Parts: sequence; C-alpha cells; structure tokens
Amino acid sequence: MALSLRRAGHRVIGCDLRDGAAEPLVAIGGEAGRAVEAAAESDIVVSVVLNAAQTEAVLFGAQGCATAMRQGAAIISCATVDPQVARDMAVRAEALGLYYLDAPISGGATKAREGRLSIMASGSGAAFDAARPALDAMAETVHDLGREAGAGSAMKAVNQLLAGVHIAAMGEALALAASQGLDLGRAVDVIRVSAGSSWMFENRAPHVVEADYAARSAVTIWPKDLGIVSGIADGAGLPVPLTHAALGQFERAVAAGWGGEDDAAVTKVYARDAGLSLPGEG
Amino acid sequence: MALSLRRAGHRVIGCDLRDGAAEPLVAIGGEAGRAVEAAAESDIVVSVVLNAAQTEAVLFGAQGCATAMRQGAAIISCATVDPQVARDMAVRAEALGLYYLDAPISGGATKAREGRLSIMASGSGAAFDAARPALDAMAETVHDLGREAGAGSAMKAVNQLLAGVHIAAMGEALALAASQGLDLGRAVDVIRVSAGSSWMFENRAPHVVEADYAARSAVTIWPKDLGIVSGIADGAGLPVPLTHAALGQFERAVAAGWGGEDDAAVTKVYARDAGLSLPGEG
Repeated sequence: MALSLRRAGHRVIGCDLRDGAAEPLVAIGGEAGRAVEAAAESDIVVSVVLNAAQTEAVLFGAQGCATAMRQGAAIISCATVDPQVARDMAVRAEALGLYYLDAPISGGATKAREGRLSIMASGSGAAFDAARPALDAMAETVHDLGREAGAGSAMKAVNQLLAGVHIAAMGEALALAASQGLDLGRAVDVIRVSAGSSWMFENRAPHVVEADYAARSAVTIWPKDLGIVSGIADGAGLPVPLTHAALGQFERAVAAGWGGEDDAAVTKVYARDAGLSLPGEG
Repeated sequence: MALSLRRAGHRVIGCDLRDGAAEPLVAIGGEAGRAVEAAAESDIVVSVVLNAAQTEAVLFGAQGCATAMRQGAAIISCATVDPQVARDMAVRAEALGLYYLDAPISGGATKAREGRLSIMASGSGAAFDAARPALDAMAETVHDLGREAGAGSAMKAVNQLLAGVHIAAMGEALALAASQGLDLGRAVDVIRVSAGSSWMFENRAPHVVEADYAARSAVTIWPKDLGIVSGIADGAGLPVPLTHAALGQFERAVAAGWGGEDDAAVTKVYARDAGLSLPGEG
C-alpha cells in the first residue's frame, strides 16, 4: 500500500516495527521513519495493522500518531475491528481536530501491491475528502458505506463471516469428496461450475489439490476475524452457529501447528479426523 | 425434463401421481401413463423423484418399472441419494439385464424446463451410451464421474454440502448486517464483488432484500439433502460441523412453519432469534 502511494507521486514515510520493512519503499523514493515523527509531517496517516489493540497503539499509544498530527489531517484505519471500536476511535480522533475514515481493506497482498484493493469505508464527508488522494492510489474500489464510522467495519465483518465460513466449508466438502473416493481435482472442476461454488472455493480449493500450503493468507487470520464476528454477533444477541463451527475448525488447525500455513490447510483438520489422505500425503 | 425430451423429438410418456401433472407434456405431443406400463415400452426410464425411498418405489416397488423394462433398457436415476444406495440399485438393475446411470441433477426448475440441467453422472460405458439420447435432451452439462454408480451421488452430496452451508451462511451474514444497521441491499451489492461471495449468495440474497419468499427451491429440500450429507459423512467417520450447523438452522425454519417458502427464508430464523426486522417486515 505504501508502494502504491509512492507510485502515485505522494511523499510517503513508511513506519514498521520490523527492521528493513521499509526498504522496498525507500528503493522507489519513499522514506523510512517513526510513526510519531512521520505523523507530524503528514496530511494522511494510513494505519495497516492486525487488530484493534495494534490500531489503538499506533494511533493513541504513547508513541502513537494522533496527538502529533496536524489539525485537519486524516486517519485511514484499515484493520478489521469491531464497529464499536471504530466509532470510539472516530470520536477520539475528531476530538483532536482530525478526520477518521473507518476503512477496512480486502484483496490480500497481491492486490495491495497493485493498488487494486477493495476498501469498505465509512466516515464523514470531510473524512472522505481528506482521505481521497490516498484512497485513489491504494484502491480499485471504495465502497462508500455512509457518513458514520463503524459501517465500514460492520461490512468487513459481514464479508469475513462469509469468507471464513466458505473456506471451512471448502475443507469440509473436499474431505467428504475424498472420503467417497472422488478425485479432488475433478471434484473442484465440477463444483466451480455448480451451485456449490464460492469465491473462496474457487480460490482456495486448488491449493488443496496441489498440496500447496504456502500462505497467501494464513490460518491464523481466521480465529482473529471470526472471533471479531462472533463478538459483534454476541453483542447483538444474534446466534451465529456457522461462524462458531468454522471458528472451531480454524482453532483446531492452529492447535495442530498449521497456523502459519495457507488457510486452505483447514482441510487437514477434516482429513486427520477421518483418517483420510489428501493430495501430497501418504 | 419431460418437455425437454419431447422437444428433442423423443416419444415421451409422463408418469406422475398427481392428476394433471402430464398435461403440459400432452399439450406438445407427449403422453400420460402409468409407470409400470410405460416402462415396458421404453428404451430409457428417467426417474425424477424426491429421495431414495421414492426411487426404490418407482424402480423396484410393486408398481415399479424395473421388472417391466426390456432387456438392455436404461434407468437414469436423478434423485439425490446416498452413494451406497446408488451402488445397490445399480447392482439390482444390472441383475435384471438393465443399465443404470447414477445421475443426480442440478440447476432447478428453470434450467430443467430449458433442457439446460447439469447432471453429475456415473455408471458403465454401456449405461452412458444407452442413456445418451435423453442426457443430450435434458442437460447442458453432463459431468462424467467415472464407470461406477455412486460417484455421481457422492459428487452431488459434495455440491449440496456447499450449497446448503452457503445459503445458511447467507442468512447468518445478512442478519449480522441488519443487526449493525447496514442497508441490506447495499450489503448485497458489496458482497457480490468481494471475497465473501458465493453462487448461492448472489442467487438467494436478493430474495431477502426483496422480501420475496416464493419458493424457487424450498426450505424443506435442505433437511433432506443435508441429512443425506450428514449420513454419508457419519458412515465415513468424518465430522461435518458446518453441515450440522446449517442443517439445524433449516430444521428450525421448518419448525417455524417456513418449510414451504424459498430457502432464503432461513434468514428469518436468525432475525427472529435476534429480534431483527428484515425487509418487508415491521
């Protein structure tokens, strides 16, 4: 995302706890810096971290950006968080004279690198206006979900509920296919053109067929994101049995030591439970 | 399916327990008859009923087709059944000198009417050859899943697992969206182009948005089909928690009196549980 901003001609300061993380940015004319200092010089701060706790630290922690930022500067907050967290942060940012855009991202590393993310965004009109130059550089699609922070995060949670359940369902279905002696490659070809298909099935099932579990998106994302979904649903008094079933399978995958693998590795939980061999095994 | 066969120029005798069911067929030059008598005059019997028990009755019951059929005639069995049931029926048919094609269908009433079904078929080469004229008339796509009965039914079960889970997940996701105050029409537009999309989401979610629960495919299909999936998985020692979660939600929809409605009505179970209003209500 920093590279996309730089390629669009912006001055970009990359801030990351990992040494060397900013090198590719520096190689194309960007800079590396510390968040609190970079924030003081920036019109826009784009926060792209794992969760609410990291967002809190980046924006409002002792070394955080918010108090250093200029009046009228904008925060684009991209982590998947509870909508209530997004609403609270927007209030805190606005109290400091800043704009806050609730802006979870979707698309993964490849689309991020290409400046072709989808962003599910909500916030004041002024927040959208202030964030626009960065949004244009990073995103192919900006879904405008209205004038209040929280709606972007809610929409992201809805998407993650479906995406996570669909990945686990893919694993469940491929394990059923294997248990019945079906060739998995053939089964994937049939499902792709049938009513059982999903974006995630089409994307992830080939990883199982090819026994390729190099993480494009890791198993560990899902206990986090489905945990957020579950928390939001609990708060609304909404039972979400499919979310819980999928969450349980991803937690079992992490417990089995597959957390760093591609999330298609949830299929291994099913295969192990039923004593089945998947492609690439046995 | 009978209309498609007739339109392709075949002599077609329609057999149905409901009075008048064959009228549209008769109107285009087909005939109405009783199964046991029609079977004696036919090269191919296409059995399109609800489940294994009905298939058993149509083919091997007291008024069934199999014993009346000519040597070398073919059965195309289209109900969704346990693969073991399909294997058993193939053995019984072959013992009578008949061919048996395990041939579950997918696509719904509209595609059936247009001769554009998908058929997930398996059986001997001779069974495929004998069934071919009927397959060509009824199907846009015939997935050839090999030379043994059972594989077609197994593939159908894999598809139904995914399709049923995806419909319930659609309901869960739209209820979450409603609980967070998102406009459902807008949420559907966003999900359609996001990683959370599925064939079923794209097809069924608009029914919820439009509050249109006229059954294209009824809720009652799913306790049946996911029950079959669950039975197959049990037989293989495979835990299928997402299937069970979805099955439970469809059973709750039936218990609430919504069994005859479009299967998108599973969303109402979630809305009721959380005290949410869906479009068209309150």
